[in-house]
Amino acid sequence: MSVSQVSEDRSIIERTFSVLEAFNFQDRSLTVSDISQRACLPVATTYRIVTKLVSWGALERIEGSRYSIGLRLWEIALLAPRHSALRAVAMPYMLQLHARAGVSVTLAVRDELEGIWLEGVWTSEARCRGAVGNRFPLHATAAGRVLLAHASPETQEELYTRNLHAYTRWTQNDPLVLRAIVEQVKISGYAICDRELSESVCSVATPIFDGDGAVIAAIGQVTETENGDAAQRAELVLATAKLISERFAALHSAEYGKKRRRSRQQAPL
Amino acid sequence: MSVSQVSEDRSIIERTFSVLEAFNFQDRSLTVSDISQRACLPVATTYRIVTKLVSWGALERIEGSRYSIGLRLWEIALLAPRHSALRAVAMPYMLQLHARAGVSVTLAVRDELEGIWLEGVWTSEARCRGAVGNRFPLHATAAGRVLLAHASPETQEELYTRNLHAYTRWTQNDPLVLRAIVEQVKISGYAICDRELSESVCSVATPIFDGDGAVIAAIGQVTETENGDAAQRAELVLATAKLISERFAALHSAEYGKKRRRSRQQAPL
Repeated sequence: MSVSQVSEDRSIIERTFSVLEAFNFQDRSLTVSDISQRACLPVATTYRIVTKLVSWGALERIEGSRYSIGLRLWEIALLAPRHSALRAVAMPYMLQLHARAGVSVTLAVRDELEGIWLEGVWTSEARCRGAVGNRFPLHATAAGRVLLAHASPETQEELYTRNLHAYTRWTQNDPLVLRAIVEQVKISGYAICDRELSESVCSVATPIFDGDGAVIAAIGQVTETENGDAAQRAELVLATAKLISERFAALHSAEYGKKRRRSRQQAPL
Repeated sequence: MSVSQVSEDRSIIERTFSVLEAFNFQDRSLTVSDISQRACLPVATTYRIVTKLVSWGALERIEGSRYSIGLRLWEIALLAPRHSALRAVAMPYMLQLHARAGVSVTLAVRDELEGIWLEGVWTSEARCRGAVGNRFPLHATAAGRVLLAHASPETQEELYTRNLHAYTRWTQNDPLVLRAIVEQVKISGYAICDRELSESVCSVATPIFDGDGAVIAAIGQVTETENGDAAQRAELVLATAKLISERFAALHSAEYGKKRRRSRQQAPL
């Protein structure tokens, strides 16, 4: 295979994904012209890629001239183990916690220096809309601090050196203070974040472990105000996290754990 | 652009998706050699595509030599409007129905001649595992019959001419009888399917409409046995479907409905 062909291949796959990346939570349906602009591709090239993506099902034509992400892509993407395996185990426990505590319950994982809401059982439709799949800052959420507390020292340091945004007047974005808070999360086993991402949100979160004792996710409770009971609520969340961790380990140790012991560094789940 | 380049482009995008299609619910982690065999691609080509997919996040290396679908693909795929818009509206109502009736609640859409479970609130973990995203036969499920009843006459006829599988001794797969059942579903507004997909499953389902009165999904209740109360349960499901339909229409008429009126034939949601 010639060098030019390799280079051309790379370019085509990258262009294809740049078409998919043109879509986001705000703009779920786009015209070819919209996509062309966002992906920085000529209209003809965009049209050609879009046509192929439609024929495979990665895009759907939702009306004459607009396109959206297709259900076929969603079907394949559900196979992401970080989503499907964890969701299947966690969901029944999340529903129980939701029913028992009457508050929103969330499940999150870390991707580099951000968190991603993997699943949620929300008390209101407003919160539910678009929340699953959204990214959130690690420093200003309880789930984020849990995930940060169990990240590598290098990842922690990388975050602390960033200019951390203050979302409200309560947001703790001083690296020194944050470092101390995160250390405490590791000791106490849970994190509390009160009005730091939004004035009307208080969250409590705890880690979920795999069979090797590695933190793979955070489960959290979200309420509108603190009410002074966050530490009490943390106990309920901790108990739920324990059940999920045990169940996940029982089901997936054979599948993931043993293999991962061999190459932990290469492959954080 | 030369014809050969167009052909080569097409080939690369298709090969890329054949790599993604190598994964399924049974095999969520594969080696390059596994993928190469399933996608019918040379190992070197497979390795090259896999490397690019990893760098974009469509695949993740979950250990030294195994790969799985990546969270970045899942993130983009969540933007599929058939999933996200409907899920956001339906989920709180599904949770209410689940809490009130104490049974599993499912949300499904049709893709050609199959159904896809879009969302589920399951009473047990066993049912939850892998269910969302799975496909199911239209003729042997309540949700499937609802979706079939509101499909085009051409789609219905295409299904009836197929050799329909009998999953249990109760499965109705005689085209003539099935046609009559499906007509009845359209009149009564709900479908019941008792032990036809599995001996231990009885389901009741009703349609969810968009603001234009088109059926966009089916919501169902799943229980282990019939108990003679399926028609009663249908009322509760109908009431829930009505709430979801109204809410969906209120939120998305502006976004989808008006545009779709212009080109309904091209773009069933």
